[in-house]
Amino acid sequence: MTASSTTRSGREETTTRFYSYGSSSEPLKLRGGGQLPGVTLAYETYGSLNEQRDNAILVFHALSGSQHAAGYNPGVEGVETLWTKDCEIGWWDRFIGRGKAFDTNRFYIVCANYIGGCYGTTGPSSIDSRTGKPYGGDFPRVALADIVDSQVQLLDHLGIDKLHAVTGSSLGGMMCLSLATRYPERVKVVIPIATGTGITNLQRITNFEQIYAIENDPHFNGGHYYEGPAPTSGVALARMIGHKTFVSLKTLELRAKSEILHPEDEGGFYRITHSIESYLLHQGTKFVSRFDANTYLRILDAWQTFDLTGDAGVTSVSEVFRLCRNQRYLVFSIDS
Amino acid sequence: MTASSTTRSGREETTTRFYSYGSSSEPLKLRGGGQLPGVTLAYETYGSLNEQRDNAILVFHALSGSQHAAGYNPGVEGVETLWTKDCEIGWWDRFIGRGKAFDTNRFYIVCANYIGGCYGTTGPSSIDSRTGKPYGGDFPRVALADIVDSQVQLLDHLGIDKLHAVTGSSLGGMMCLSLATRYPERVKVVIPIATGTGITNLQRITNFEQIYAIENDPHFNGGHYYEGPAPTSGVALARMIGHKTFVSLKTLELRAKSEILHPEDEGGFYRITHSIESYLLHQGTKFVSRFDANTYLRILDAWQTFDLTGDAGVTSVSEVFRLCRNQRYLVFSIDS
Repeated sequence: MTASSTTRSGREETTTRFYSYGSSSEPLKLRGGGQLPGVTLAYETYGSLNEQRDNAILVFHALSGSQHAAGYNPGVEGVETLWTKDCEIGWWDRFIGRGKAFDTNRFYIVCANYIGGCYGTTGPSSIDSRTGKPYGGDFPRVALADIVDSQVQLLDHLGIDKLHAVTGSSLGGMMCLSLATRYPERVKVVIPIATGTGITNLQRITNFEQIYAIENDPHFNGGHYYEGPAPTSGVALARMIGHKTFVSLKTLELRAKSEILHPEDEGGFYRITHSIESYLLHQGTKFVSRFDANTYLRILDAWQTFDLTGDAGVTSVSEVFRLCRNQRYLVFSIDS
Repeated sequence: MTASSTTRSGREETTTRFYSYGSSSEPLKLRGGGQLPGVTLAYETYGSLNEQRDNAILVFHALSGSQHAAGYNPGVEGVETLWTKDCEIGWWDRFIGRGKAFDTNRFYIVCANYIGGCYGTTGPSSIDSRTGKPYGGDFPRVALADIVDSQVQLLDHLGIDKLHAVTGSSLGGMMCLSLATRYPERVKVVIPIATGTGITNLQRITNFEQIYAIENDPHFNGGHYYEGPAPTSGVALARMIGHKTFVSLKTLELRAKSEILHPEDEGGFYRITHSIESYLLHQGTKFVSRFDANTYLRILDAWQTFDLTGDAGVTSVSEVFRLCRNQRYLVFSIDS
């Protein structure tokens, strides 16, 4: 941590910084065919880059994360309403810091919000300079490889030629593998967590259900909802559907046990009778206040079309890993 | 089969019959506190009841089924629009018939549509005699035990004191167990299929997602939608969510392989790129044309609150089965 003040249970306070590149004359071209007239990346760093510039670790956050991976951050410029209390403590604070697994006494950790995001990086809720209004549904399609490329640009900006390591879990793990296989010379150690070289059919189905839930919300309006009510029920349902895929059923049952049934959870005909329903609804509705529906939709789309081998210009997973035989891998998988 | 004409690949034609009981002076009281001024049950029978009246088998249909379990039925009185081509061949035609597992040369098979249903039994789309309009959201809450009770009334009407057997799968299996344990003297053989003595948490979650999808459809309007557009997208999403719980992933993958991507499947921002998405969307949208949203919602509600032990007046599953020790059980379970 570079900042000196400490708050919220003694955590060091961190600040989100911004890096912009591209312009209307040199727009950023995206794999889906669209382009952006310049991009701003919101990112944080923890620890210090050493003189040899070889102690950097890039962390990709997952679907609902942000650039704020560690420490305490009370607010991000331009992200007023979505930066709720749930965002203030870094999502990986238990693992990044002095003496922790990603030890900031030794390493320089970098984490950036993905393109299409809602925590300060250019995304659907950003103002389109050509219209003066948020992009909304007109935001171009983004691929996971586009996001990886943008973060390589950030590494260039920070003067990092070769990473000590790259890591990320779930969707972040896919980007971690994308960087490692498409830029094999730029990373020494690869740490993919709870991820895969492709998308399973069950995950594809669950993602599709979530996409459908968001697009069919009465307020979604093709992504142009920033001047009206947000598509909250669609996002809440999507989050409920997604939640059970990244929390094991056993953990979910344990957490739900301490859940109190809230009568205010109950709208419409159906009456909630079980704490597991109340817990999931609470997770869904809480999420709505800190996340943007368009961002959720766009990152699910990028997930559905993830193509590790195609992006690396080969046809099989074994060929992909032949490309990066000089790297060391530390793989974490989850069995429940 | 009692009817003589044969059609559609040589299947015997069957006819749905109706049995009504109760009246505004003697209303049917339901466990949820509501009541109905009389009920009509739509049912079919296959084979003949013998002189001893001891060869009857009652079949409970599952969530999306109907009373039409076997043979060919081109239409049901009062169910014009929902009786699509998909409904015409009995849902268990492969198992019920002459020489089949449920042999109509030997047995008299009875199958009735549940209360709250949309295939001829009194349900939310039926006309409320007090208002002259469909019940819609005002239809009273129904429990699985209420449905079982109504079918016991039908058995009385048909002169069947004791069933040779009762069967049903999934939700139908729960009703099969409910009848067997609450009316142990009225059934000899119990054949529950792909079901359980209670609801698992994963099923509870999946049901809740489906309930939420229907109730949040922009056209649902608290169940009062019969004079406007139907909540089709909510029901389609619910069906997609449900589909993967009763078709194994392997079968689903196999079926999806032969699916052609339909450009007309694609609304909004997201473009379908995989046949498994197209297959599920097709299942969801096809279902909408043959099923009523209120019925779907009400039967999910009944499922969520199924209470085998409580309904039988005991506190444990072992006590329940002690009540019916003179029955024979044939249990079919599914491991994928």
